[in-house]
Amino acid sequence: QRSKLPDVGTTIFTVIGQLSAQHKAINLSQGAPNFPCDPALVAGVSRAMQQGHNQYAPMTGVTALKQILAEKVETLYGQKYDVASEVLITASASEGLYSAIAGLVHPGDEVIFFEPAFDSYAPIVRLQGATPIGLKLQVPDFAINWDEVSAAITSRTRMIIINTPHNPSSQVLSREDLDRLAALTRNTDIVVLSDEVYEHILFDGRKHNGMATHPELAQRSVIVSSFGKTFHVTGWRVGYLLAPAELMEEVVKVHQFMMFSADTPMQVAFADYLQQPENYLGLGAFYQQKRDLMASLLKDSPFTLLPSAGSFFMLASYADFSDETDSEMVQRLIVDYGVATIPLSAFYTDGTDNKLIRLSFAKDEATLQAGARALCQVK
Amino acid sequence: QRSKLPDVGTTIFTVIGQLSAQHKAINLSQGAPNFPCDPALVAGVSRAMQQGHNQYAPMTGVTALKQILAEKVETLYGQKYDVASEVLITASASEGLYSAIAGLVHPGDEVIFFEPAFDSYAPIVRLQGATPIGLKLQVPDFAINWDEVSAAITSRTRMIIINTPHNPSSQVLSREDLDRLAALTRNTDIVVLSDEVYEHILFDGRKHNGMATHPELAQRSVIVSSFGKTFHVTGWRVGYLLAPAELMEEVVKVHQFMMFSADTPMQVAFADYLQQPENYLGLGAFYQQKRDLMASLLKDSPFTLLPSAGSFFMLASYADFSDETDSEMVQRLIVDYGVATIPLSAFYTDGTDNKLIRLSFAKDEATLQAGARALCQVK
Ligand SMILES: CSCCC(=O)C(=O)O
Ligand SMILES: CSCCC(=O)C(=O)O
Repeated sequence: QRSKLPDVGTTIFTVIGQLSAQHKAINLSQGAPNFPCDPALVAGVSRAMQQGHNQYAPMTGVTALKQILAEKVETLYGQKYDVASEVLITASASEGLYSAIAGLVHPGDEVIFFEPAFDSYAPIVRLQGATPIGLKLQVPDFAINWDEVSAAITSRTRMIIINTPHNPSSQVLSREDLDRLAALTRNTDIVVLSDEVYEHILFDGRKHNGMATHPELAQRSVIVSSFGKTFHVTGWRVGYLLAPAELMEEVVKVHQFMMFSADTPMQVAFADYLQQPENYLGLGAFYQQKRDLMASLLKDSPFTLLPSAGSFFMLASYADFSDETDSEMVQRLIVDYGVATIPLSAFYTDGTDNKLIRLSFAKDEATLQAGARALCQVK
Repeated sequence: QRSKLPDVGTTIFTVIGQLSAQHKAINLSQGAPNFPCDPALVAGVSRAMQQGHNQYAPMTGVTALKQILAEKVETLYGQKYDVASEVLITASASEGLYSAIAGLVHPGDEVIFFEPAFDSYAPIVRLQGATPIGLKLQVPDFAINWDEVSAAITSRTRMIIINTPHNPSSQVLSREDLDRLAALTRNTDIVVLSDEVYEHILFDGRKHNGMATHPELAQRSVIVSSFGKTFHVTGWRVGYLLAPAELMEEVVKVHQFMMFSADTPMQVAFADYLQQPENYLGLGAFYQQKRDLMASLLKDSPFTLLPSAGSFFMLASYADFSDETDSEMVQRLIVDYGVATIPLSAFYTDGTDNKLIRLSFAKDEATLQAGARALCQVK
């Protein structure tokens, strides 16, 4: 069979998930909570279904949801988006990323992204007949080297993909990063695609430096976000995009033929649930407590933890006690110690091995304790 | 803004839906029921959420759902599909169509499809850098002219898109059609993409001639179906694909990076609901009653109804009393008579006008009566 993605296999999340299940391991791999969402949200979906909100939603989303989102973004970040033409409800942030790239990137274009990276960016770019240009974040601070970005920009560069808070490194962009990005893309037709699905999960008093906080960048950015990550319902498949109308127009053309519309009762429930800002404003504190618990439980483990500034994740180094590859280490952790993590090399197109593994702490306390106990045994 | 789909506007369903709402028209346009689904299905989703099925489903779908689907297809149509490698749960039939085309069609390929056609086929093909080759169905019987298909096949033909029962014409394929299709694609590498979302909605004792009923064609077909159309929940966004493993492998690569997985609680609920075949086997009779009611209510209208063999739709001709274009007629019906339909020309790339409009009878009795009453007034 001819293939458009000949060297792509099954996503690492599926591979590790299956191995983990097979060995009944404690699963600290996928970025998905294992604790319940707010029962009020479940009740909201049930109510929406009972009220008959079960047929196609409007193609760009339920109006009440788009309205409350636009209000929220203006309140939090200061940027206004037109409800009719600049807000799109997608069937997951994944779909949003795909629609944005497929709508805006043409064959022959180049797209700059930063590795380690979420595993869908490069394949989606390649599916458009375009070339992903992966630049490596610095190790161990995972900062962007803007001089390298500047050198990588060509006349074919169409898009730069940003992700803050960053999966898998857990690092976040600063104001200075945004200013550098703005300067580099000024007077070009480069679009910024900004994956901000962890926008409410920042630690130690940090503020989210998303594209909507930067009036100039907002003019040339498509922002991707998610309800699944924010409300502990990664299986509900509703996300959204924000973009200036002229960019959104091209993105919507893909969305309308690929997806038509996102899930109706869930949109109705989210529209209601978002009325209460306390439903998302406490999320950073909630996950910071989990991060800190995990760090304290791993204090006597052989792993050295890198600082985590946001997201569900932290990176752990084992370079002090083993020279296995990170894939070997992850395999051994599952098989011998019953705990599943993700090797950082899976987030590099060239498989770069920094002897780091990614732990997800989006888990209940019992799981974090059991996982940490297993990791403390490792030799 | 550069565009990959420069001549594509907003989908006809959105345009007519908005005009219809603005004029408070009786809406016989979009193929979406306006009556409730089975409360047991709503209860099933509520239960699944309460039981905690709210995180990412497995990438290819909830296993229990894939299993019951494979059983159902084997029982009804005689074809076996391997649950692990040949069944994919998608976030709607729309997503399934997109993943199949994006996974299998390469730049420069040609894809044959039949017009009038569902409006997403050609744009999805064009987004792959491939060429949609639209062949016209005969009027007024909307049969495929297989000699024309034979003449249209070239060395670049990669795919033929079939849709049975057919939207918008409501016609269905015969065994002879399947045999002709099999003969024309034998010993080629042409894939059949078969949109069978109305597979359970056939009238007057007809049997569904889907690709899974034809062992030879099944070997080179990707079948697309939907739960939304079958269970009166078009807003729930869950569908599925069936295909031989070697084709499915390429389709899954797109799905995994575009969507990752479909909605979890709804998959769990459908897995349960499909255990009772009476939940879908009565659907043809259910909609036949609506078709017949609509036909009898329109007996004294100025419209001439074309026979409807399956799906939610029937076509109505006004050639006897007006020479307006179908778009003008639809506009006038909404504005002057308060009833919304779809002009058939919207389903042709070149806007062919056969003076036919499409009525959806997936509506409750009161709506059908009110809609018919309005249509009977037309002069
Ligand atoms: C859709 S993939 C899995 C979730 C995730 O974001 C991660 O684990 O990195
Ligand atoms: C997803 S589009 C609308 C529904 C439909 O299939 C139709 O009306 O033809």
